[in-house]
Amino acid sequence: MTMTLTTTTTATPVTPSRGALRPLGLDEVQITGGFWAERQAVNGAASLAHIEHWMEREGWIGNFDAAAAGTLDGHRGGREFSDSEVYKLLEAMAWEIGRTGDAALEARFRALVDRVAAAQEPDGYLNTNFGRPGQRPRYSDLEWGHELYCYGHLFQAAVARARTRPDADGGLLALARRAADHVVATFGPGGIASVCGHAEIEPALAELGRATGDRRYVDQAALFVERRGTGTLADIDLGREYYQDDVPVREATVLRGHAVRANYLAAGAVDVAVETEDAGLLDALTTQWENTVARRTYVTGGQGSHHEGESFGDDYELPPDRAYSETCAGIGSVMFSWRLLLAQGLPRYADLVERTLYNVVATSPSAEGTAFYYTNTLHQRRPGTVPPADVASPRASSSLRAPWFAVSCCPPNVARTLASLAAYVATTDDDGLQLHQYAPARIRTALADGRRVDLDVETAYPRDGVVRVTVATTEDRPWTLTLRVPAWAQGATLVTPEGTQEAAPGTVQVHRRFAAGDVVELRLPTAPRVSAADPRIDAVRGCVVVERGPEVLCVESVDLGADVGDARLDLAAGLRDVDGRVLATVVTRTADERAWPYGSGGEHPLGGGSEVQLIPYHDWANRGPSTMRVWIPLA
Amino acid sequence: MTMTLTTTTTATPVTPSRGALRPLGLDEVQITGGFWAERQAVNGAASLAHIEHWMEREGWIGNFDAAAAGTLDGHRGGREFSDSEVYKLLEAMAWEIGRTGDAALEARFRALVDRVAAAQEPDGYLNTNFGRPGQRPRYSDLEWGHELYCYGHLFQAAVARARTRPDADGGLLALARRAADHVVATFGPGGIASVCGHAEIEPALAELGRATGDRRYVDQAALFVERRGTGTLADIDLGREYYQDDVPVREATVLRGHAVRANYLAAGAVDVAVETEDAGLLDALTTQWENTVARRTYVTGGQGSHHEGESFGDDYELPPDRAYSETCAGIGSVMFSWRLLLAQGLPRYADLVERTLYNVVATSPSAEGTAFYYTNTLHQRRPGTVPPADVASPRASSSLRAPWFAVSCCPPNVARTLASLAAYVATTDDDGLQLHQYAPARIRTALADGRRVDLDVETAYPRDGVVRVTVATTEDRPWTLTLRVPAWAQGATLVTPEGTQEAAPGTVQVHRRFAAGDVVELRLPTAPRVSAADPRIDAVRGCVVVERGPEVLCVESVDLGADVGDARLDLAAGLRDVDGRVLATVVTRTADERAWPYGSGGEHPLGGGSEVQLIPYHDWANRGPSTMRVWIPLA
Repeated sequence: MTMTLTTTTTATPVTPSRGALRPLGLDEVQITGGFWAERQAVNGAASLAHIEHWMEREGWIGNFDAAAAGTLDGHRGGREFSDSEVYKLLEAMAWEIGRTGDAALEARFRALVDRVAAAQEPDGYLNTNFGRPGQRPRYSDLEWGHELYCYGHLFQAAVARARTRPDADGGLLALARRAADHVVATFGPGGIASVCGHAEIEPALAELGRATGDRRYVDQAALFVERRGTGTLADIDLGREYYQDDVPVREATVLRGHAVRANYLAAGAVDVAVETEDAGLLDALTTQWENTVARRTYVTGGQGSHHEGESFGDDYELPPDRAYSETCAGIGSVMFSWRLLLAQGLPRYADLVERTLYNVVATSPSAEGTAFYYTNTLHQRRPGTVPPADVASPRASSSLRAPWFAVSCCPPNVARTLASLAAYVATTDDDGLQLHQYAPARIRTALADGRRVDLDVETAYPRDGVVRVTVATTEDRPWTLTLRVPAWAQGATLVTPEGTQEAAPGTVQVHRRFAAGDVVELRLPTAPRVSAADPRIDAVRGCVVVERGPEVLCVESVDLGADVGDARLDLAAGLRDVDGRVLATVVTRTADERAWPYGSGGEHPLGGGSEVQLIPYHDWANRGPSTMRVWIPLA
Repeated sequence: MTMTLTTTTTATPVTPSRGALRPLGLDEVQITGGFWAERQAVNGAASLAHIEHWMEREGWIGNFDAAAAGTLDGHRGGREFSDSEVYKLLEAMAWEIGRTGDAALEARFRALVDRVAAAQEPDGYLNTNFGRPGQRPRYSDLEWGHELYCYGHLFQAAVARARTRPDADGGLLALARRAADHVVATFGPGGIASVCGHAEIEPALAELGRATGDRRYVDQAALFVERRGTGTLADIDLGREYYQDDVPVREATVLRGHAVRANYLAAGAVDVAVETEDAGLLDALTTQWENTVARRTYVTGGQGSHHEGESFGDDYELPPDRAYSETCAGIGSVMFSWRLLLAQGLPRYADLVERTLYNVVATSPSAEGTAFYYTNTLHQRRPGTVPPADVASPRASSSLRAPWFAVSCCPPNVARTLASLAAYVATTDDDGLQLHQYAPARIRTALADGRRVDLDVETAYPRDGVVRVTVATTEDRPWTLTLRVPAWAQGATLVTPEGTQEAAPGTVQVHRRFAAGDVVELRLPTAPRVSAADPRIDAVRGCVVVERGPEVLCVESVDLGADVGDARLDLAAGLRDVDGRVLATVVTRTADERAWPYGSGGEHPLGGGSEVQLIPYHDWANRGPSTMRVWIPLA
């Protein structure tokens, strides 16, 4: 099936040729203040330089110089996938330059591209870890070599650059196309009939196809998606499930195995399904999303409950204290959900994006933007130790944010996501504009038929639930403004020029002949609320979680003045919201000291209940070592 | 400090020079029927041949032939520690020959010893994985190479043989001594100042010292124990905690890291503490045992709650559905507890030995003795698939017993433990005899002063709680018979010739001038009982476990007729014991189907409660794929 590929130039990560919604670019939407603008500012001012510094220091960038100089051998620094981290940094820089026009960053970006480009081989191959004397041959270890995975991040960087600086991309797109042509020649029909152990090239090739109009890249992505699950990779100790090579994508019913791999693959498979109009594949992916959300997702939106294999567990196996919930898996989930949202337009996808952004992505970086969580536990049982400031942490599961990891996929992944975050705020379709995420924003775009629509959004969200949308410019024809009402927002109301109405969870539409200066105000309830888990989630039986708006809250020992293991929530005493601070009545109890912990012992109150502040989960561990829990046992 | 080493020849694995209790040998105690005799019979008749078959098939025995022939290179089969499995098989065979005198097994044993011996190098070194052209140099990878670990199992095999056939050991002891001398020369004072990444040589060297009277071996064990925890091994991704190289043994307060390594080290450290009369070290190990039992042990006695690193978790982090509870860790725990019992005489150690034997060691082998559990989960969420009969299973966490594993430490470990099990039944001291484990048994021994004591034990334990001890032979002087009353046995009674008395948990003594024919009967209550967990064990909040005697029970879907995820125990309806079958009233409930599993949904009864059989945990998964849980939520 050969189909026309619509080439799009929107400055946004994903531009499907068809689907329910059209994404907007960074030139069309800017986040102008509030929660996310603060994080974007820290990301641009501190994180990007921090990440570049560590990549230089660890020699990951230097590997490209050595490759160009011909001095690389079998003992280069960094893990087998370290090239990809440099590409993710390039992507983050590209979005940041697109967002801010930062000239100094532009110079750093160009210098870095030049160093990468110098390492590319004449046939387009580019990887500092394979193919040289002393190194293993190219593509000799598809299971663990990550060569195609690295290309994937290279392509995404090139697409980001091409869409934000189409006139002067610095040669990155041409470099990526040479590599992509090499991939198509090597892994296309008649070539190596296998896939990469870590999915990522699938969505990247699809997007490179969309960015360049070159259909071959989409076809290659489709080939990779179809091959996955047919057992072309080795049956490793972790099982083929680890890299989703156990079941063909269109036959799978739930995400499984390595949670980042699973989400990246699903994201790429949506791209392929959309571009090839493969309704069966899209249905399978929708089912996978539904089952994964209903059975294998933490209340934070985090995914992956096993440290071993960084993988999904069984259905309903979601232990808070061994939550792996890798930051990158959260980002992968945002990628997957966003593509389904563009394809189908359903607000449930934006709900999960929001939950994951606030409670996984925002949790990873420290307030200063120079330390990160790789995993995001929901229950910290013992106060962690502060990781060394000047040494990469060897382990992903450090209990406090670390400046760097030997496997440092998460920091640049957070950076590229924050820099491009405006892309997830709004979309358009033939009839109007949809607001998916709420932040102070400036939106200047046009509907599909060319009608200009300019909006300004003002809100103190998530601290406050009032979202005020002012029409800045509009033409004198009716169109529809669609606002997402999050699933948690029972009792929301909408105020339009016509009056006030109830706004049930889902979406609410305002169809009218707008005039400049019109205001639509969505009022979302942000009183703290209590949720219990599906009883099949055994690990949190007898516990509840407190949430406020899109934020999951937690109790931290710093506020409790005791270990969180002793905290019991007194629900009857209610919750209070005092100027955005959520106060709960917590009774501290202590268990009998027992030589054998099973039998008829009990626990005793340490004192009467007292009001304790519950803080947003994303803010925890910013005040030194502590214990913390999201799920609090009932008194 | 140089001290005299008492050479002992008792046919038992551990013979301390001093301590509260003196162990008895297989020549002094025989298990004559019942639960454990059945398992010993299956072990001897089926498991040993099964294990030998697989080790031949996988080439692990053949590696020794190839080493002797000079044809080994860098590509031998088996993992780096496969030599040790052959040694554990030799140890199991030695005990089994000691137990039964099986002539055919004797011939197989001698043939296998000859094949191993042929591979030993002139300087005593013996390992098929290092030191040859194409292989890495000797001791070039102490972290993962397992060379000293392999010696440990060789020494234990040699000790088992020397103690069961002191007149005709087939050359194994001499072989072991040559290797041990090489170790002392290489790792002694002035040699390589480090330790093995996997503890095991420590208890083995101590025992080789005890068996041979050669003090140098004990001193070397002490040196290894003192070096551990000083950071002589690399700081790997799993941390030095993984191999207990994080904290010196005498400073540690709890077991941590890899659970098998931790227990083997602790066992060896007790040996060292006893032989060097190091009260401080013994105190530290006692504290470690206490904290590990109170905070890091499953109700089954299983230890190790992380699949990643096969390791202990934090205090009270004991998820049933991710219980690793490696069979070998259970065996290591028995080794540790047994040594503390001999040193201190406290019944709590025998309590844990009993619990671990019934609920971990007995759980591993299938009824036929030809398939094994490596890990022992307490909650199986989805029915497993039957592992292939003719291929080694790559993964430790298979949900049904597998005939063999790529890492197959557990099968021969179970085999050696079952073959030597009579050694754990009884001990003596100056004043009498102590019964620690209850099984039909024939005991023919003498007290320390030479007084002959012969006893016969009759019991249907654990099915029935009556243990009848008959004095077969005694001299006309008073002595003390001590019987352990398990901690769970509230309400036990003791019937002696003088009458009936209460027997509180701990021990009960009968001091009298016994006569042949005298009967002492301990009556332990075996009604099913319900236990809850320390509330700090968050993962089983709102659940209880049902136990009966020393056995932990579980509910299996085969009996429930539904998935165990839907089972809720109706405690108010009581438990019934019908001819040893425990019946509980279980209500099956189903949770609301929810798109998002957090909120205010509930669950609904699927029907009224019905009586369901709870089976001993060690018997589960003998009837095909099923789901199973030990901890059952309350209705």
